Amino acid sequence: MSNQYEAIVGSDQPLALGIILYPFMTALDFVGPLTALSMSCTTYLLSKTLDPVATDTGFSVVPTMTYADCPQHLDILLVPGGFGSNAAMQDPELIDFLKSRGATADYVTSVCSGSTVLGAAGLLKDYKSTTHWAYFPVLKAMGIETASERVVTDRNRISGGGVTAGIDFGLSVLAKVRGEDVAKRMQLIMEYDPQPPFQAGHPNSTEPRLTEQVTQWINPLIQEAVTIAEGIQR
Amino acid sequence: MSNQYEAIVGSDQPLALGIILYPFMTALDFVGPLTALSMSCTTYLLSKTLDPVATDTGFSVVPTMTYADCPQHLDILLVPGGFGSNAAMQDPELIDFLKSRGATADYVTSVCSGSTVLGAAGLLKDYKSTTHWAYFPVLKAMGIETASERVVTDRNRISGGGVTAGIDFGLSVLAKVRGEDVAKRMQLIMEYDPQPPFQAGHPNSTEPRLTEQVTQWINPLIQEAVTIAEGIQR
Repeated sequence: MSNQYEAIVGSDQPLALGIILYPFMTALDFVGPLTALSMSCTTYLLSKTLDPVATDTGFSVVPTMTYADCPQHLDILLVPGGFGSNAAMQDPELIDFLKSRGATADYVTSVCSGSTVLGAAGLLKDYKSTTHWAYFPVLKAMGIETASERVVTDRNRISGGGVTAGIDFGLSVLAKVRGEDVAKRMQLIMEYDPQPPFQAGHPNSTEPRLTEQVTQWINPLIQEAVTIAEGIQR
Repeated sequence: MSNQYEAIVGSDQPLALGIILYPFMTALDFVGPLTALSMSCTTYLLSKTLDPVATDTGFSVVPTMTYADCPQHLDILLVPGGFGSNAAMQDPELIDFLKSRGATADYVTSVCSGSTVLGAAGLLKDYKSTTHWAYFPVLKAMGIETASERVVTDRNRISGGGVTAGIDFGLSVLAKVRGEDVAKRMQLIMEYDPQPPFQAGHPNSTEPRLTEQVTQWINPLIQEAVTIAEGIQR
């Protein structure tokens, strides 16, 4: 299969990238990595049906393939996070599909709270993972070892932190599968030369009162996820 | 109108945010800013019809409103960029709609090559703007003053640089319309604490050979845009 982007991505053999879509995922969790990876991949946006899937970002995305039609082998399997990850952890059809393709994918990956869904599918047993800063208690409730880094690689498991970490994650995955020059060219095309307006992107660096406000707001969702996670572990 | 995110966004009065969707726009160009802004806004994803719109990132997005149904007043009007911006510059229906809503919007904004579409609609006359690093010649061909910064504000025109700059842009716009605390809380929720894997996101910082490779690849698109721009100026 030829690739119109060969001069940039250094290969005419696209990788098979499967991304799980589920209701109220965070759009940026998969759009960030996909922007880095799409020119190097044949992308399957996977859902139960081909009906548009609502994100928690205010718009819907059209799946390109049903679970039933997905090839057994994927080079990269990616699970995004979002407000909907609690429901995804408890969705038997989604979890069964993840177990099936996760068993044979070259890389089993997540961004943000997508790691809690991988955990619910048993795919992080004896692997180290990161997640959104607020979701660490959820991984811990499943007995999963955590690492507070923006991108964490443990053998063929690769995870990114919260939301925007998916960009760093996507470029890191690209460097691993296609080499650093390809990743650097994509970083240049994406003009990824970040200049955050504030020092406020992580509890380690922002004012404690802001972390407290966000934590208080998100806490019911985290507590619900912990309860789900404890149920899975038992 | 109440807002379920009031504790985070500090207001129960959502802003009206209109985003233009057009074929082969870059998804991240609008998903980045929208992730920062969506909790503070009622978002209209605007297109000619409600048919899904293909992005240049390998998936389609469902518009939520047609041009015809869009209210006359928008607080923020946003035009994303992408491989499709050349065609968008020459689309009379899109350009007429932009002229109409751009005349009354509180903020007229763009990310990446979206600025060339604003320029084609005459909305950057006597305003300074930025764009994707490769697209500066296109703004110049329309006689628009450029500034090579990641986010550029000139009165009520706000523009972001290429692709990922939309995140910095979105948080900057949010700080302007809602205050710094709101923007900092959103930055924390988005875990925007970037750690790019390489120093490669801008021609100023990456290896010249990589810039040359990307420039050579993208040049036909830029030359086409310059020709379109010159035709508009005449």
